[in-house]
Amino acid sequence: MDITAQHRLFGGTLTFAKHDSAATRTPMALSVFLPEGEGPFPVLIWLSGLTCTASNFTEKAGAYKRAAELGLIIVAPDTSPRGADLQGHTVANDEAYDLGQGAGFYVNATQSPWAAHFQMESYIVTDLLQLIGAEWPADLSRVGISGHSMGGHGALTLAMNYSHLFKSVSAFAPIASPVHCPWGQKAMEAYLGTSHDAWEKYDAALRLAKGKALPFDEILVDQGLADPFLETQLMPHLLEQAAKVAGQKLTLRRHEGYDHSYYFIASFIDDHLDFHAQRLKA
Amino acid sequence: MDITAQHRLFGGTLTFAKHDSAATRTPMALSVFLPEGEGPFPVLIWLSGLTCTASNFTEKAGAYKRAAELGLIIVAPDTSPRGADLQGHTVANDEAYDLGQGAGFYVNATQSPWAAHFQMESYIVTDLLQLIGAEWPADLSRVGISGHSMGGHGALTLAMNYSHLFKSVSAFAPIASPVHCPWGQKAMEAYLGTSHDAWEKYDAALRLAKGKALPFDEILVDQGLADPFLETQLMPHLLEQAAKVAGQKLTLRRHEGYDHSYYFIASFIDDHLDFHAQRLKA
Repeated sequence: MDITAQHRLFGGTLTFAKHDSAATRTPMALSVFLPEGEGPFPVLIWLSGLTCTASNFTEKAGAYKRAAELGLIIVAPDTSPRGADLQGHTVANDEAYDLGQGAGFYVNATQSPWAAHFQMESYIVTDLLQLIGAEWPADLSRVGISGHSMGGHGALTLAMNYSHLFKSVSAFAPIASPVHCPWGQKAMEAYLGTSHDAWEKYDAALRLAKGKALPFDEILVDQGLADPFLETQLMPHLLEQAAKVAGQKLTLRRHEGYDHSYYFIASFIDDHLDFHAQRLKA
Repeated sequence: MDITAQHRLFGGTLTFAKHDSAATRTPMALSVFLPEGEGPFPVLIWLSGLTCTASNFTEKAGAYKRAAELGLIIVAPDTSPRGADLQGHTVANDEAYDLGQGAGFYVNATQSPWAAHFQMESYIVTDLLQLIGAEWPADLSRVGISGHSMGGHGALTLAMNYSHLFKSVSAFAPIASPVHCPWGQKAMEAYLGTSHDAWEKYDAALRLAKGKALPFDEILVDQGLADPFLETQLMPHLLEQAAKVAGQKLTLRRHEGYDHSYYFIASFIDDHLDFHAQRLKA
């Protein structure tokens, strides 16, 4: 692991680092907030949205004051593999904000050219968690996951598919059902091919509608009603319907006037940190 | 005034805007946080440091949660004039991070080519305050001022030179004595010429050492001890010595391990908001 920057804040330490991922076969960037004290600490994984790097949440969410008070490690990984290794795929990677670099969608790609590096699902649940366990005083039996937009989709689906790894899950303005929206359809087709059978695993609303019993006593989702992507891309009502079908408690809070930005996230992040801490520290 | 973006946050509203300044003879950019409720609200002016725009504090300081609780308007102006009007001075403006665009130093330039537009002192105390009074439910009899680095210098010197306008003043890692450091010397010579008589007005430590009675019951300054600019550029001990000479109460808090970044600011911004609110709401 290479530490690229380190800052003291709220009595703790924020580290920006890079490490080699076996899953993506590239270096991967991340930030880690470590609170003051001895540990081991519970961990919250934060998955960011389209176009984001490890810096967006880190700089803009205003999460670390409460995290310091609660004694939570917060890990914010990058949203895709990046860098010189991907030069062979430059055009495919960079032609759009919603595909390729900055848009990994937290899936394991099976299609060319993406399959070579875009293995974000394995990266998060394997390489990233291993790194955190090895390099920080983290208690990997107490890990929660949250995220925003594409990262909200990632948090929900990874929590559902790896419920043994995650004790708590929440999301801000998640892409609730990728198979039903343009962002999701484009990414799923490029990364997974045209068969919808392969997509289902990565669709939170579909997974939930299956009625599979989940270990989560509650899922917390916040959504701004002035979010320009609400109707066309995010569709939280599909998650709400599926939760009803599945008998899964979902607290979906709709906020008048709030948009899709980090100002919305900052306004409610403390509620999410409290929600996770309550479950991770129980 | 042109509103360029608006976001709901913490029950209030954040507005990014541009307006024409008579002082700089350019459009000037700013952000304004307005808390929920009727007002009129007291106002905190935040002056940013070298290279910053109106966005840095706005995105990174994590100040608005407490500002919403306290009922404080926070105004973050840009650090210099910018834009097409300055094309004639492009080389001079953009050849360095510490001179020209992004580096107004909150002075009224008297030297060519800067005098034509770089009138940041007049901009802050005249055009900016007028705009806030006209467009927001602000109580201009209750205005505080704070800032970081170059903006800490700006906050201290403007508060001292316009003590009838500002009821409270604080700073993070201010350039305490521009005449004694390379950043300050370069800027003062470029903007004000070689006569040191013209510089003194813009040097907080020198102003304070004059022993002129100030109306401030206390000045709050935070400084990180891992700040790479501490010894060479910031020199808060000169402010401390001057405060002693002047009999001005200065609370200078030195923080082990903290650097010059917005992570340092975020860690202590709530203390500054409380400090100002206590004085502005008294």
